[in-house]
Amino acid sequence: MTSTHRAVVRITGPDRPGIVSDVSGLLFKLGLNIHHADQHLDAEANLFFQRIEFPVPEGWERVRTELTKGLDALGMQHSLRVLSERLRVGVLISKHAHCGMDILDRHRTGELQCEVPVIISNHPDLGPEFTRRGYTFVHEPIAGNKAEQERRILARLAEERVDLVVLARYMQILTSGFVAAYPNRIINIHHSFLPAFAGAEPYRQAFRKGVKLVGATSHYVTEQLDEGPIIAQGVTRVSHRDTVADMERKGRDLERVVLAEAVRCHLEDRIIAYGHKTVVFE
Amino acid sequence: MTSTHRAVVRITGPDRPGIVSDVSGLLFKLGLNIHHADQHLDAEANLFFQRIEFPVPEGWERVRTELTKGLDALGMQHSLRVLSERLRVGVLISKHAHCGMDILDRHRTGELQCEVPVIISNHPDLGPEFTRRGYTFVHEPIAGNKAEQERRILARLAEERVDLVVLARYMQILTSGFVAAYPNRIINIHHSFLPAFAGAEPYRQAFRKGVKLVGATSHYVTEQLDEGPIIAQGVTRVSHRDTVADMERKGRDLERVVLAEAVRCHLEDRIIAYGHKTVVFE
Amino acid sequence: MTSTHRAVVRITGPDRPGIVSDVSGLLFKLGLNIHHADQHLDAEANLFFQRIEFPVPEGWERVRTELTKGLDALGMQHSLRVLSERLRVGVLISKHAHCGMDILDRHRTGELQCEVPVIISNHPDLGPEFTRRGYTFVHEPIAGNKAEQERRILARLAEERVDLVVLARYMQILTSGFVAAYPNRIINIHHSFLPAFAGAEPYRQAFRKGVKLVGATSHYVTEQLDEGPIIAQGVTRVSHRDTVADMERKGRDLERVVLAEAVRCHLEDRIIAYGHKTVVFE
Amino acid sequence: MTSTHRAVVRITGPDRPGIVSDVSGLLFKLGLNIHHADQHLDAEANLFFQRIEFPVPEGWERVRTELTKGLDALGMQHSLRVLSERLRVGVLISKHAHCGMDILDRHRTGELQCEVPVIISNHPDLGPEFTRRGYTFVHEPIAGNKAEQERRILARLAEERVDLVVLARYMQILTSGFVAAYPNRIINIHHSFLPAFAGAEPYRQAFRKGVKLVGATSHYVTEQLDEGPIIAQGVTRVSHRDTVADMERKGRDLERVVLAEAVRCHLEDRIIAYGHKTVVFE
Repeated sequence: MTSTHRAVVRITGPDRPGIVSDVSGLLFKLGLNIHHADQHLDAEANLFFQRIEFPVPEGWERVRTELTKGLDALGMQHSLRVLSERLRVGVLISKHAHCGMDILDRHRTGELQCEVPVIISNHPDLGPEFTRRGYTFVHEPIAGNKAEQERRILARLAEERVDLVVLARYMQILTSGFVAAYPNRIINIHHSFLPAFAGAEPYRQAFRKGVKLVGATSHYVTEQLDEGPIIAQGVTRVSHRDTVADMERKGRDLERVVLAEAVRCHLEDRIIAYGHKTVVFE
Repeated sequence: MTSTHRAVVRITGPDRPGIVSDVSGLLFKLGLNIHHADQHLDAEANLFFQRIEFPVPEGWERVRTELTKGLDALGMQHSLRVLSERLRVGVLISKHAHCGMDILDRHRTGELQCEVPVIISNHPDLGPEFTRRGYTFVHEPIAGNKAEQERRILARLAEERVDLVVLARYMQILTSGFVAAYPNRIINIHHSFLPAFAGAEPYRQAFRKGVKLVGATSHYVTEQLDEGPIIAQGVTRVSHRDTVADMERKGRDLERVVLAEAVRCHLEDRIIAYGHKTVVFE
Repeated sequence: MTSTHRAVVRITGPDRPGIVSDVSGLLFKLGLNIHHADQHLDAEANLFFQRIEFPVPEGWERVRTELTKGLDALGMQHSLRVLSERLRVGVLISKHAHCGMDILDRHRTGELQCEVPVIISNHPDLGPEFTRRGYTFVHEPIAGNKAEQERRILARLAEERVDLVVLARYMQILTSGFVAAYPNRIINIHHSFLPAFAGAEPYRQAFRKGVKLVGATSHYVTEQLDEGPIIAQGVTRVSHRDTVADMERKGRDLERVVLAEAVRCHLEDRIIAYGHKTVVFE
Repeated sequence: MTSTHRAVVRITGPDRPGIVSDVSGLLFKLGLNIHHADQHLDAEANLFFQRIEFPVPEGWERVRTELTKGLDALGMQHSLRVLSERLRVGVLISKHAHCGMDILDRHRTGELQCEVPVIISNHPDLGPEFTRRGYTFVHEPIAGNKAEQERRILARLAEERVDLVVLARYMQILTSGFVAAYPNRIINIHHSFLPAFAGAEPYRQAFRKGVKLVGATSHYVTEQLDEGPIIAQGVTRVSHRDTVADMERKGRDLERVVLAEAVRCHLEDRIIAYGHKTVVFE
């Protein structure tokens, strides 16, 4: 493993004097060369957050052991990952293809560095579109028994050793059992500027309300519908001229970009979720 | 009155075949030269909207009479105004000065073409700031009797023949009686992207929610708090780094711009409110 | 042909009194129901522009003849098209796939209503990517003779009866002969906010300059490189943290959206190019 | 001096292993509590940048001495300032009032924490506007001798111990002698998205070019006109409907916000200029 590989450490815990000094001292002692470092203090919650990126050095196995030991000794939550050890992403879709297509195009062009072992849908319609692109498409119909369908999906995701689930306009509400299987590892795209227009048909709600901007929100999925920690948001202008269909069209561009941004940040260990919020080290 | 003056006609009513032809024929017959024309069809509501701007011609008094007669004959709601007949604006403020200062700066530099005969506040603090700029400042304290305070404000606005009331961060909820006195003629700035974070302390709400954008909304005031027809909206990026105070600072820039945009559009007869929405001919 | 089909008339010419009345009268006389109408007056150039959209009525063939006759009589440039008579688009690419993929995804999901009979590239690399999606991919290498290569491309475009050529990051400068074959019918995406950073390697130029925003510009191609009439532009924030590679990544999202917007506007007859500029009726 | 005061350290120099550790160790040893820390590595130039903000502790005089000694020992360029020791700002204007008014409004409301001892103009027109607001206004006409006028301005700025010069639409090109007196301490607002439309009448240039966005750029002034390090930029949408006057109006909002952002960042020691670029720690 050469130095073109990058590793990322994330640290979270109660703030205390000297924490920055301790972490940077630890890395320096191990001969690690910080390329990017970003930190944040939530003064209200007294929580400290840090993300450090460095090239993987010679003799990585030994260094990794030492580094892990040192991080453990800090008494804080932490993660350590070499980014080239790619995460495995399962994509769930329904009938709207644009977000799924976009994620996969970014995968194919190398913009999203991950594996995509499986695409699962509750509808068969988009199967040919994705299989012809070389992906594995699985149709899991609900057929009146959603619990059973979710069980089958979870089994498949487990079998594929999926690390991250992306809901690319999957139009079903996941049960709490499903959500609990992937805490802060399911990313959804909601087609409004949350918390405005939570729930069904947000563009229709926006049209009725007469807003002058429509938005999209990517967030981790929690048990509370449309309430999970927000990762990224975008808006675009609309006017009285825009019908619901126009808003949907404009919104699709936002959905693509905002979802892809969230997935990229997750894949690069840039997000730390805590409580109802996220720290996103861009 | 020379041709550098501009007049604006606005028309609203149920759509019917030939309405565009009828209006343009009427103007042509009177020798009026359309400089800007904008129209809109709300297909769901079957409502037609039009705004036409033209230079005031020679012999305007006679033309105005003919034009009014012709507009009456269309069987639609309409308005006709020469923009240089400036509207009179009353500004209501509390303790936050930035929106009021901004409106008055734009007034002084000629960006907002109107008269500002009076500024009224429920607090005395900002009086010197505005009087030294040459404006009339009136302190109307609530002193436990809001009904009475509103009565005094309404009396003063009437006395000053105010056409438009601008709530430049006036932190009181107006009673329905006050609102009814100026239908679609009171503009408020709410410091969030409505309908998200209606009510009190929107930046604090936004901070708790962990949104990645904060917004501002200008709207006409109706009886329902923060529910009136939206005129303009803006958003700006925030991140986990931003405290409530940072959000307030970023938000102030939005509030200034979004409120000024709404006031300008109103002064230039660019807005037609209908139901809960607006048509804004920019 | 039923009333779900929409037709579009575009009119351009020297402004004169009564032109709006004449056009709307003509449409009314033929029983046409204006759904959208937009007009513009370039006061400096004394040029009038109009776009009118209406549902195709019963007995369209007869109406079309009458309408064309009426439009001819106006003495202005005009066009008339039924939008469901889809334009045929030829896509030219090189090695960057993202814009091409995006255009084709929008084609497949119905967002862009057109035919795409052929994709041509000066490199073979992306062939499999597009053929597996069901498109015809043609490799036309330059091989030291660009004139000859362009001749072959033009022949193929002619054979496919292509109406619009989209340069989806085609990294070759077209000769004036090629450009002349498709006046205002070749759309390019330039990866900067033109006129800043025209020419090669705009992101590198932007990085060196230390700008805080990067942009993308879609425009019609003219003989002057990067000087054709601008159709759409977008920008996104960058900071000192962004490397050239980061700017490229952020820019790709802009390129996708800004190119697609231009293509959609062209397909819906929303653009009128004149001189070095465009009127875009959104 | 209590702990509500904040101090800022900025460090710049060639990157070397252990620099982060050295700095954080130094601050920890002195008992300083890092509230914000931000760092940047320009990998191409091998330059390291850091900004650290901490509350001023008890016994500050002694700590300051120790800290300065420690920073000196790092062998890097550095600055140390307590933010409540306010910078003194001289504002230069001509005939456009909006940027100057905006800066002063933000000064009055406490948004910009600084002193504004003097406003200088080459025109007398805006004098009453600023004196009535309680500011000292000085008219320094050019009267055919610009060198002499600049000498008088420099003398006055020196007399007022000005730290930062803000060109709030000052429509004169400063000589290199003037610029050299305040290196990276003169902030200008240019009314375009630089490097597009440098030089005179940028909105007219933008109108002729037919761009779909107009911008504003704040930058430090260097000898090369409109070429100094960029601090902040903004853009807003325009269309074929916008005349030069409309662009000017839309641009004024950008100018206000973008200039104020640059001034705020300078006052809070957030900017490090190097070469032709800036690092801005927001």
